[in-house]
Amino acid sequence: MKNQEYVLASRPQGMPMPENFRLAESETSALEDGELLVRTLYVSVDPYMRGRMNDAKSYVPPFQLNQPISGGAVGQVVESRNPSFAAGDLVSGTFNWARYTVSNGRGVHKVDPNLAPITTSLGVLGMPGLTAYFGLLDIGKPQPGETVVVSGAAGAVGMAVGQIAKIHGCRVVGIAGSDEKLRVLTEELGFDAGINYKTAPSLRRAVREACPDGVDVYFDNVGGDVTDAVMANLNDNARIPLCGQIALYNMDKPDVGPRNFSYLVIHRGLVKGFIVSDYAKSFSEAFAQLGAWTREGKLQYRETIVEGFENIPDAFLGLFRGDNIGKQLVKVADIN
Amino acid sequence: MKNQEYVLASRPQGMPMPENFRLAESETSALEDGELLVRTLYVSVDPYMRGRMNDAKSYVPPFQLNQPISGGAVGQVVESRNPSFAAGDLVSGTFNWARYTVSNGRGVHKVDPNLAPITTSLGVLGMPGLTAYFGLLDIGKPQPGETVVVSGAAGAVGMAVGQIAKIHGCRVVGIAGSDEKLRVLTEELGFDAGINYKTAPSLRRAVREACPDGVDVYFDNVGGDVTDAVMANLNDNARIPLCGQIALYNMDKPDVGPRNFSYLVIHRGLVKGFIVSDYAKSFSEAFAQLGAWTREGKLQYRETIVEGFENIPDAFLGLFRGDNIGKQLVKVADIN
Repeated sequence: MKNQEYVLASRPQGMPMPENFRLAESETSALEDGELLVRTLYVSVDPYMRGRMNDAKSYVPPFQLNQPISGGAVGQVVESRNPSFAAGDLVSGTFNWARYTVSNGRGVHKVDPNLAPITTSLGVLGMPGLTAYFGLLDIGKPQPGETVVVSGAAGAVGMAVGQIAKIHGCRVVGIAGSDEKLRVLTEELGFDAGINYKTAPSLRRAVREACPDGVDVYFDNVGGDVTDAVMANLNDNARIPLCGQIALYNMDKPDVGPRNFSYLVIHRGLVKGFIVSDYAKSFSEAFAQLGAWTREGKLQYRETIVEGFENIPDAFLGLFRGDNIGKQLVKVADIN
Repeated sequence: MKNQEYVLASRPQGMPMPENFRLAESETSALEDGELLVRTLYVSVDPYMRGRMNDAKSYVPPFQLNQPISGGAVGQVVESRNPSFAAGDLVSGTFNWARYTVSNGRGVHKVDPNLAPITTSLGVLGMPGLTAYFGLLDIGKPQPGETVVVSGAAGAVGMAVGQIAKIHGCRVVGIAGSDEKLRVLTEELGFDAGINYKTAPSLRRAVREACPDGVDVYFDNVGGDVTDAVMANLNDNARIPLCGQIALYNMDKPDVGPRNFSYLVIHRGLVKGFIVSDYAKSFSEAFAQLGAWTREGKLQYRETIVEGFENIPDAFLGLFRGDNIGKQLVKVADIN
């Protein structure tokens, strides 16, 4: 069967351009056992796909040059040699940016248009909905009365995050890039406040004003200066589910925001700030263990001791020069 | 009693300078009930103190202009009107950068020179040791066979972190700023490898070579380009206890490393990258909940649907322009 498909013509430097994609004419191959031919109905385009355009190892393999782009899509089965599917079935899965895709059936599931519109399998009842659900509830752990800020709030993930946070009794602030988006969030979807990051004179102040009690959960879809502004308004023990960094995907060396959070997304890295006094209740247990290891010779220490009261400030400055090996101390006096 | 103390003469811009400190002559006040007079023996200087030199709210209040700098110190009690302490006692606590400090006894504890050298109460058996212990074990959760990387490895915290990681069966790589520091770590303290961040031609490659199995735990004391290099070598589900960011403390707008990690330290913020497929086992539970909320009207969705197969690439590019409200889809065909 004659087919049309978009292939990756070249890898983008920075912002993707139309010329990175090429429309190619092809023919669908004859089905083998277990395969099905799917006619595309709806294609989902998602920010994470930008990462697949780079030739870099990540949690999904990169697109190959001159091969079809693929992603989430809904289609209808034209022909099937897979016992799980029949011609006419409506299906959701990973298909090519093509009129037709030959699929082996893996990751394909039927969608029932009587239960929900078929497009929701690509949105609120699909990957974006799941992303919002697990990121917010498992990592963000929102508690009633807390303030949840969502960046990329008018996207499929963001708007689900905000509403799920409302269901959990939180105050919800959405950050998005147009007043119309903010209107939808606050007037239709129940967000408590919205910030237009393109027009706010000071993003940092806008976040502070929209979050008078500070930020307890920041669900980050975007990174960049939006994230800078939210970071400056965190409460103690704030949680930041890190979902995406769309503001950075087209930058080589970002000069705004936390510059390497993308690595944390890719590797599910955990970052947790801490202050030792948070653990005060366990100090005696820790002292006992540290003391035992020290006595057993398993835990050694070193000290760099500067002599003289007058050298205290310089010893402090030496920390930034890296003067010390082990604990930097200043000896001021002898024991009497 | 005549006293000498260092006061904060001015707040530093960037790197602290000697002129930010001023030696002042004073007299100790007469003791009131509950107070004790402590003669300073050892002063601890610690990187976190740089934060207290700024006029900024943090987890400890800022130093005040023309008032004494204070920090961890060991001293000997000269006179006591506090029933818990007697003249001659050796004590550890927060005292001024002064010959003598009048203390109300809060946070002061006796140290026994027969159990361990008194200086260890400022190091391995004090705040730095506890910091290493809880940060590594509670947040880093090192498992036998994993690779643990420590920055600021030759400092009091870093060298304890590396050894505690060895006790837990990990491969340990220390990053420090001199070959002598690395010699101590690898030859004396059992670190498996060391990286000199001042001389490595490529830090990123040095980390990759020292960690052939990738980085599972990164205990970060420094931030900056050292952290950039480690972040590029994370394994999936890597943990990063965030202890300090000394490379950034004297920068106004850091242009290396994750620029705003200091906020995470101050507020104990948690960052956790995630990929929705990590939660595959719980998808059906999540679908059920999302579906229920959608039917109840508590969870709404929006879609931005571009028509036409030929518009797929531009719809994708539109994500970066922020064209969409809700899920961005491309409609390619109608259901037959």
